[in-house]
Amino acid sequence: MLVAFDWGTSSLRAWLLDATGAIRDEASAPLGILKVPGGDFDAVFRQVAGAWIESGATAAIASGMIGSRQGWAEAPYAGCPADEAALVAGLITVPTSLPVPLRIVPGVSRIDADGIPDVMRGEETQIIGDAPSTGRRLYVLPGTHSKWALAEDGRITWFASSMTGETFAVLAEHSILGRLMDGRAHDPAAFRRGLGVGATSGGGLLRRLFSARTLGLFGELDSKAIGAYLSGLLIGAEVADARATVAAATGAAPDSVTIVGGAELSARYAEAIDAAGLSSRIAPADTTVKGLWRIAKQAELV
Amino acid sequence: MLVAFDWGTSSLRAWLLDATGAIRDEASAPLGILKVPGGDFDAVFRQVAGAWIESGATAAIASGMIGSRQGWAEAPYAGCPADEAALVAGLITVPTSLPVPLRIVPGVSRIDADGIPDVMRGEETQIIGDAPSTGRRLYVLPGTHSKWALAEDGRITWFASSMTGETFAVLAEHSILGRLMDGRAHDPAAFRRGLGVGATSGGGLLRRLFSARTLGLFGELDSKAIGAYLSGLLIGAEVADARATVAAATGAAPDSVTIVGGAELSARYAEAIDAAGLSSRIAPADTTVKGLWRIAKQAELV
Repeated sequence: MLVAFDWGTSSLRAWLLDATGAIRDEASAPLGILKVPGGDFDAVFRQVAGAWIESGATAAIASGMIGSRQGWAEAPYAGCPADEAALVAGLITVPTSLPVPLRIVPGVSRIDADGIPDVMRGEETQIIGDAPSTGRRLYVLPGTHSKWALAEDGRITWFASSMTGETFAVLAEHSILGRLMDGRAHDPAAFRRGLGVGATSGGGLLRRLFSARTLGLFGELDSKAIGAYLSGLLIGAEVADARATVAAATGAAPDSVTIVGGAELSARYAEAIDAAGLSSRIAPADTTVKGLWRIAKQAELV
Repeated sequence: MLVAFDWGTSSLRAWLLDATGAIRDEASAPLGILKVPGGDFDAVFRQVAGAWIESGATAAIASGMIGSRQGWAEAPYAGCPADEAALVAGLITVPTSLPVPLRIVPGVSRIDADGIPDVMRGEETQIIGDAPSTGRRLYVLPGTHSKWALAEDGRITWFASSMTGETFAVLAEHSILGRLMDGRAHDPAAFRRGLGVGATSGGGLLRRLFSARTLGLFGELDSKAIGAYLSGLLIGAEVADARATVAAATGAAPDSVTIVGGAELSARYAEAIDAAGLSSRIAPADTTVKGLWRIAKQAELV
């Protein structure tokens, strides 16, 4: 049996998988890498996986920020394009105080045509968990730092990050736009209006951000709707840019996007993608554990 | 004699002008509209202008956020295009406890082709203080919410805001980029690199923001240089967008920009404007008081 960890910045999830990859047990804890008391990752590992290893698990694997410089041990990035074999080759082995060491999946890095690097860590495992072995699929993994990625024949061939979620958060919490907002409830009409403005903002995002203030000032946007408008504006800009960037990178505009994320944010992105004239597909919720299983199989850990 | 106020959000400046518009005395105080104890604007007016009025000033005029909804009294926006006469027509008169009332200059509003409103309040006076009575001049007033504006034959015919300064501030203070920054010292090379990335970011600003993280991660940007890089990135994006937007609004690309602002920020914008292939001119420091004088003259207050 295999212990599989999705070990992020603020929380972790873990699963016990049997010899067929089926989930036998699972756990979660608010013990992301920045919340582990004294940085004692081994204690958390024992706490979460100890009983499973006692009852017969013979291997353990983790993906996510646990493999970053701030995590348990740094798993250097695999270069893009990256397939399962590259992720297996980049696995690092961390000794634990139990009889089973922990393997950590590397992140993936990419250097853009203009020399600017980009990175993902954790998302590579989610993509590998969903990507078909033949054909092309475009992904978005929305969040603090959204990732857009292209999988071709089971390999991650391109990706780009967008600081959409974090930009929304700092503007909503700390800027004048936040002070004008009355709550963060979803407002479908305001969100759609934001999507439209964001999608056509081109290089003028800093200019268009100001519209979240002026539309309120001119009574066109209720204070309860400013949050949804700003969210739409940023996501609309992100989707439009991703569409153009993917088209430039591949020579062909995408027609469909697979969304990997939580239910609420996935629904918002589905609407944004639809508004951009593309179709969307919401990935199953278990892409991470599937990816960990695939990598562990390929590494012959199970 | 005239008392002239530049009364903003966080501070105020005031001047005593003689019958020729020459400065006879001046004052400043950290008593912007959000810092006036108990909202007692009249007390601040007496404190700053009382002695000047006793010694013979017969009129008082103010521009800036003092005329906003949160200020002493709201001076409704004049529509764009707006010239001196329109600002005079929009002056409001606020009674004070001294024998001299306070006139407040209106802000200016503009509705974009796609229906989105924009506003300025205070900057219109600075522009009027510098704009020649014939010919065209493009302005930038950099800051929390930068303004770009076109003056033609002494009229403000177009303008647009950009939330550059505030976006920088919230990212530098509250995002992961800020946590990676070691101070905010200027770094000319990092600033120039940021300018280049920002100028070519097009619709991908949210994507390019992430480069301030990854360039640090890959050892290409020292933590002391990340702040300057991010500043360059945002200003570079602002200048590129303004250039394109002005060209679209007027049918002709601008070749020169007049910068109205503090010395340090003006120098940064001059560099950004130069990097964009345009020439720049730094306006004299007294554009506000000149503008207030012009409007007061036209209103026959002096």
